[in-house]
Amino acid sequence: MEDLQKVVQGIRPLNKDYLTQAQIRLDNLTKPVGSLGKLEDIARRYASIKEDLNPSINNKVIFTFAGDHGVVDKHVSAYPRSVTVQMVLNILAGGAAVNVLARHVGARVVVVDMGVDYDFEPVEGFVIRKIGYGTRDFTEGPAMSYDNAVRSIKTGIDLADEYADKGVDMIGTGEMGIGNTTPSSAIQSVLTGLAPAEVAGRGTGINDETLRNKIDVIETALAVNRPNPDDPIDVLAKVGGFEIGGIAGLIIGGAYRRIPVIVDGFISTAGALIAVAMNPAINEYIFYSHLSSEAGHRKMLEKLKQEPILQLDMRLGEGTGGAIAMTVIEAAIKIMAQMATFESAGVDKASI
Amino acid sequence: MEDLQKVVQGIRPLNKDYLTQAQIRLDNLTKPVGSLGKLEDIARRYASIKEDLNPSINNKVIFTFAGDHGVVDKHVSAYPRSVTVQMVLNILAGGAAVNVLARHVGARVVVVDMGVDYDFEPVEGFVIRKIGYGTRDFTEGPAMSYDNAVRSIKTGIDLADEYADKGVDMIGTGEMGIGNTTPSSAIQSVLTGLAPAEVAGRGTGINDETLRNKIDVIETALAVNRPNPDDPIDVLAKVGGFEIGGIAGLIIGGAYRRIPVIVDGFISTAGALIAVAMNPAINEYIFYSHLSSEAGHRKMLEKLKQEPILQLDMRLGEGTGGAIAMTVIEAAIKIMAQMATFESAGVDKASI
Repeated sequence: MEDLQKVVQGIRPLNKDYLTQAQIRLDNLTKPVGSLGKLEDIARRYASIKEDLNPSINNKVIFTFAGDHGVVDKHVSAYPRSVTVQMVLNILAGGAAVNVLARHVGARVVVVDMGVDYDFEPVEGFVIRKIGYGTRDFTEGPAMSYDNAVRSIKTGIDLADEYADKGVDMIGTGEMGIGNTTPSSAIQSVLTGLAPAEVAGRGTGINDETLRNKIDVIETALAVNRPNPDDPIDVLAKVGGFEIGGIAGLIIGGAYRRIPVIVDGFISTAGALIAVAMNPAINEYIFYSHLSSEAGHRKMLEKLKQEPILQLDMRLGEGTGGAIAMTVIEAAIKIMAQMATFESAGVDKASI
Repeated sequence: MEDLQKVVQGIRPLNKDYLTQAQIRLDNLTKPVGSLGKLEDIARRYASIKEDLNPSINNKVIFTFAGDHGVVDKHVSAYPRSVTVQMVLNILAGGAAVNVLARHVGARVVVVDMGVDYDFEPVEGFVIRKIGYGTRDFTEGPAMSYDNAVRSIKTGIDLADEYADKGVDMIGTGEMGIGNTTPSSAIQSVLTGLAPAEVAGRGTGINDETLRNKIDVIETALAVNRPNPDDPIDVLAKVGGFEIGGIAGLIIGGAYRRIPVIVDGFISTAGALIAVAMNPAINEYIFYSHLSSEAGHRKMLEKLKQEPILQLDMRLGEGTGGAIAMTVIEAAIKIMAQMATFESAGVDKASI
């Protein structure tokens, strides 16, 4: 716990000098000032995170954290619990959406078993860091112990650290866990003060009746557990999930090592809410990849005061939105690195 | 002219069977139904255009049409006319934004001189199809003759045809022409019935005074020329530009050859307005790459009843937004082609 706080408190706000220097560079390129919009915002902030005006992007990894959820027994999802295992195997075999999109953008997918209710055979590229066989049903008590919440976060930090040492220069978050929009909505409710009915959505595609039940379940969980909004680890322990803790940790670890973290959709942003609640400076190291069509996501991003890069009406998770955003971010970096300047190209500047 | 009408009228609405077949295929992939949002819309329509449920994308070309505009003498732009030539040379040298982004997504850039006020040396990859040395100032009469409007459109059609024969399977539009938001806004005003003040914007970054002047200039042009809103070629001739005609033609030619056309921003969409006015079925062959931050663009897309793929606050032109959209479209196609099905992966379907 002491180590965790040391890492969290060790993350500093971005050095504004790099933002300024990157802007000067962008303004000298052969284009009207500001005409590349969000690409320029991305390039500027990316350079500031790396403290490098010409950062290279050679090694991109998407971490797909998997975990099961006891609350699935309360019928909150359109899919049976068994699908978590099946989809982990599908991702390991390269057949899931995140695999296709990661290959397209030149990223690797690393699957992390944080707490799936199954004993997997070890295979290459699969990281088993199981904290339990699924969380407990949090309508009847905490999802996990406080110690296990800390462990799940530390697991994410350690992974960021390990892959930073391996030369990874961009990290994406992702997840697979049937039922995990329910803990994500619960986390959002506690950390934003919004009622469960304002933030809960249809997840993988539940009907009206199941949605009403899901809201009831979250309300019960909050009443039973009374998570402390001033202690994000307590929130994670009481109404979270192992994979959400892993995501929060990966974000913290990425920020600590100055690696830009590309946060995927709704569940990943719940992880970001926990990380940013621990130290607001962490938010500056995060790029929010896309606006999910899951109902509560827009309000999460409003709370975090950040704009998503893409709006593709996606709601799949796994890291799929993050994968596509990675190639947009890479485009922005190349703009800063490769475009001609007004001087080098002999182009006149604006006359008014 | 007879040939042109034959091509235009030869373009048929999409075969809805392919939309249905593509949807069935997408719904069998290991993901909740509809959870990839716009990627699924893109894949479905792309397959319908190609009449192929597993289309390949191996050969992507962005055509950057260049032309000068007599109306620049009326001080409508932030940049001097000389910048058209300078930027054409910059693109040919590979230093412009469109070059960087095209390289990033694996597309080629083909620059087409439709009417720049300069005699370029021929170089490889540069297509010289000059129709004039810039349009006439359309506050004093038509920008070009009716015959030259037809010629500019035919030039675009011929290019699409030539590159279709070369095996190009995705085409992007782009342009370079100092002053060309002014004719684009004029075209929009005529074809949508909106007043110039409602559609004119700041282009490359003009100030309030220049914007007021730009609106005056467009109002004068419309009063002097009285373009016929029922004849898109008359509109192009009176208040258009050579490069805008080339774009309209490229779109028509792409649709005729069943090649998806990725339309860039504001000026390219003005070309699309002309093409679609000639035959509404053409609109089904177009992907609108992004929402430009140029003021009138949103209303253009509303008129065309299509959603942009990206919203990155870009306003650069050249084909830059189209380049980034190309890689998103390619991602969508790969999703359809490469993902596992529920059956092949042994994943359970939704239970409710």
